[in-house]
Amino acid sequence: MNTINQLSIDQLNDDEKNIIEQVLKGFESKRQGLTTSYVSAMYAMEHQFDGEILNISMPVTPIVYNSLGMMHGGITATAIDTAMGVLANKISPPDKAAVTNQLNLHYTAPIHTGSIQAFAKVIHHGSKSMVIEGWVETAEGKRAAHATGSFFIIDRK
Amino acid sequence: MNTINQLSIDQLNDDEKNIIEQVLKGFESKRQGLTTSYVSAMYAMEHQFDGEILNISMPVTPIVYNSLGMMHGGITATAIDTAMGVLANKISPPDKAAVTNQLNLHYTAPIHTGSIQAFAKVIHHGSKSMVIEGWVETAEGKRAAHATGSFFIIDRK
Amino acid sequence: MNTINQLSIDQLNDDEKNIIEQVLKGFESKRQGLTTSYVSAMYAMEHQFDGEILNISMPVTPIVYNSLGMMHGGITATAIDTAMGVLANKISPPDKAAVTNQLNLHYTAPIHTGSIQAFAKVIHHGSKSMVIEGWVETAEGKRAAHATGSFFIIDRK
Amino acid sequence: MNTINQLSIDQLNDDEKNIIEQVLKGFESKRQGLTTSYVSAMYAMEHQFDGEILNISMPVTPIVYNSLGMMHGGITATAIDTAMGVLANKISPPDKAAVTNQLNLHYTAPIHTGSIQAFAKVIHHGSKSMVIEGWVETAEGKRAAHATGSFFIIDRK
Repeated sequence: MNTINQLSIDQLNDDEKNIIEQVLKGFESKRQGLTTSYVSAMYAMEHQFDGEILNISMPVTPIVYNSLGMMHGGITATAIDTAMGVLANKISPPDKAAVTNQLNLHYTAPIHTGSIQAFAKVIHHGSKSMVIEGWVETAEGKRAAHATGSFFIIDRK
Repeated sequence: MNTINQLSIDQLNDDEKNIIEQVLKGFESKRQGLTTSYVSAMYAMEHQFDGEILNISMPVTPIVYNSLGMMHGGITATAIDTAMGVLANKISPPDKAAVTNQLNLHYTAPIHTGSIQAFAKVIHHGSKSMVIEGWVETAEGKRAAHATGSFFIIDRK
Repeated sequence: MNTINQLSIDQLNDDEKNIIEQVLKGFESKRQGLTTSYVSAMYAMEHQFDGEILNISMPVTPIVYNSLGMMHGGITATAIDTAMGVLANKISPPDKAAVTNQLNLHYTAPIHTGSIQAFAKVIHHGSKSMVIEGWVETAEGKRAAHATGSFFIIDRK
Repeated sequence: MNTINQLSIDQLNDDEKNIIEQVLKGFESKRQGLTTSYVSAMYAMEHQFDGEILNISMPVTPIVYNSLGMMHGGITATAIDTAMGVLANKISPPDKAAVTNQLNLHYTAPIHTGSIQAFAKVIHHGSKSMVIEGWVETAEGKRAAHATGSFFIIDRK
């Protein structure tokens, strides 16, 4: 692990230090079983489920910025796809897994600071596939994206 | 920056160490101007442009895994959206920026290891918007995703 | 108009006669100003608006069948796009028109008989574009399709 | 069939007469086995297949107009969905049928007159589903729409 040791942490700028801290905290959450993937861990996603709507919150920090200094559309998609996928798996039988087959996103407002919430709700629940709608709201409650996705229900290996 | 100092890097497992190394390398690339966002930097994206097709390559490591141990659909979307966005901005006038308005993705094969390449190509180039198609291939040349996106061309502030 | 005169209406089979009758009734509705396009007229679309949701009903007859004897996915799209478009134009200023920029549809159940209702509701209302969601229900209240669309708001000539 | 008999064909205006003629010609084509659905018949669709690309041509007449006097987005979707569906069924085994699961369309130019051609080409051919891309060109060769669709391959009853 020479690469890490050689690099002087002190040479990192503030954004970089904050990103490393966020990633390390994510590792800790993953070890504690609070999240099950490095993607969720790194973006500090936390989810809640009220029985109908699956809700993921995550902070908006430089780790999610695109080159224009706003939240990258792909990371917004990641938050929505995660919310949809967690929901789809939660309502599937234990021996089944749900995988994204198709995802459609409309971006309706830029996201700059604070935190976002991504929501997912079932539209259609078939035996082999599901359609789920998802959306993202800014900290001010503004809808920043709206999406629909279809998921295949497959055998869990 | 106590959090980073207190944490013993030696306590990280191999996946975690690899992720931190990848992120630190990304910071270095960003400082050198090889990439313009932390998102591209962390995922170690490298792009090429032949005048028609914009091509982004990135390694498939645990940093991109979902809870099923395959590349997260949102990160695949991030690679495609980045390829499309870099292309859209490259062919826009200097005083304009292109932002994702809508993105549609079909997932056609899981991605487990190696590296991927994301491609973007213009379908329609209007004065106010563009339609771009994108796709992802695995290291074996298998198409793992196919997408189309529409971009708004706005004034750069 | 020799073509029409020469053809003996008596030689038409029942489905064909029903289609011709439906089309002629549609012409009559259009003359009376109940509908503004031949597409709506031929498919006998009728719409209602409660201030929030635009609702279009239409009969399911052989005129809408695909070669498998069920409602053609394109005609389902036509019903949804019409509901969305009527809504988008209804809530736009008199000197503006709304045109479909992008349409995404998920088909969730086949449609065979009776009638359908297509619904449209605004998700995002910007100054230059809108995102609208739409869905179709069978006579039994089953969701047969779910859609989202984006519309550009342009100057009416 | 009193409705048809009572109506004086002479009272129809030119657009209406042309529409009735087109529909009657479509019935004739369907009887001759040139087309298999009333939808294709009425819109006078003709298709060709070169082994890779399925091509449907259709005339642009008032029968396809929306209230703005241009081709209805839903009818454009119908042409594309038909081209995709014919292709999907053509390359499926005889005991299987392909049905549209999801359809995404980008509209890139209005269509006013002449005729259009809709094209379909396979992007991904799996055992249970396919992804197909489609597009529409005006008589002048301008791309008016671009689409992708996913199809389920089901047992033919």
